Amino acid sequence: MTMKLYCFGESGNAYKAALPLELSGLDWEPVKVDFFGGETRSEAYRESINPMGEAPVLVDGDERITQSGVIQTYITEKSGKFGGETPREAREVLRWVFWDNHKLSSQAGAARFMLNFLPADKRPEAVTDWLQGRLNAAYAVLNAHLQGRDWVVGDGPTNADFSCCGYLFYPEPFGFARSDWPEIDRWLRNIQSLDGWKHPYDLMPGSPADRA
Amino acid sequence: MTMKLYCFGESGNAYKAALPLELSGLDWEPVKVDFFGGETRSEAYRESINPMGEAPVLVDGDERITQSGVIQTYITEKSGKFGGETPREAREVLRWVFWDNHKLSSQAGAARFMLNFLPADKRPEAVTDWLQGRLNAAYAVLNAHLQGRDWVVGDGPTNADFSCCGYLFYPEPFGFARSDWPEIDRWLRNIQSLDGWKHPYDLMPGSPADRA
Repeated sequence: MTMKLYCFGESGNAYKAALPLELSGLDWEPVKVDFFGGETRSEAYRESINPMGEAPVLVDGDERITQSGVIQTYITEKSGKFGGETPREAREVLRWVFWDNHKLSSQAGAARFMLNFLPADKRPEAVTDWLQGRLNAAYAVLNAHLQGRDWVVGDGPTNADFSCCGYLFYPEPFGFARSDWPEIDRWLRNIQSLDGWKHPYDLMPGSPADRA
Repeated sequence: MTMKLYCFGESGNAYKAALPLELSGLDWEPVKVDFFGGETRSEAYRESINPMGEAPVLVDGDERITQSGVIQTYITEKSGKFGGETPREAREVLRWVFWDNHKLSSQAGAARFMLNFLPADKRPEAVTDWLQGRLNAAYAVLNAHLQGRDWVVGDGPTNADFSCCGYLFYPEPFGFARSDWPEIDRWLRNIQSLDGWKHPYDLMPGSPADRA
């Protein structure tokens, strides 16, 4: 049965699930979530799709899985891919996925939303400044880790890469410039070179162009 | 060999690792990290303990494990406890641990730090207000989930409980009051009733009293 991923193009968190799904070769299809129309905040969505009011959600028969990190783990269980080659590597992969959720994507998603998808007069500048300070500290950790490495963990792509890159391919400005972080830039090119790689706006339905 | 947990009492993220360590019956001891003296931001700490510049860190012989969610998973592997009874429960546990890292502890830790451990004239009020708005949405999700449940997942305590409660036992005010969230309050009492439960300031070295 084809798995369904509830997602939308603007969501880096959804991309963190959609990209390994696509690259794993598993059978899946996207279902567009109308985030900008308020769908994730509706009672119907909370009742029938996800009580946390979030995307992405993966539906595989009777299984309904949320949180991109758990969806990634599920993809690894089903495909045998992207989870690390040894128990130690598996922990190292999970470490970076947690770090990303805690320190990188959480802040990047909020900063990008406020700086691009809120009206200019509703942007809380003190908050976006604070988030950008936290993000610069996170980019520095990732950039330093990638020195001498092609992938975050081990010798090939894992969920650690797919998690950390979640928001880093988007064109809308939120304070991240690849040219400022040469090791991150090189690593992102490695991900873009993977057979079957797609940009978030090509992999999932919905993009700012739809609302222009 | 006794495992060592690099931690400090004020860190809810460290508590998320220390509490299941203590309740698992595994052999461990805390090593105090002088966070307020700048230890986690020092080059020595980044080089020898954790390049992410964070606590907690668990050292078990040759294994050095960071990120509380990964330490919890490791405790489950070693003890067989707190990870859920079935594959579906295990995913549900991991889902709440990710949710906590993404939506609850990350924001609670920052809000609590700024509101209690920064001088009053250095507190960015717009940021703490924004964090408290995000946190209230998270408390509402957790409180609703706990209706009719004694534990976040299944019939007993898991890493989901130990993660979500990370910052919720602290006395210093950061906008969370147990009396506002009756289901959360009842669930916290269940955790406090566990044999061997300890408050963060009793389980780990360091508390605000040391700096008074």
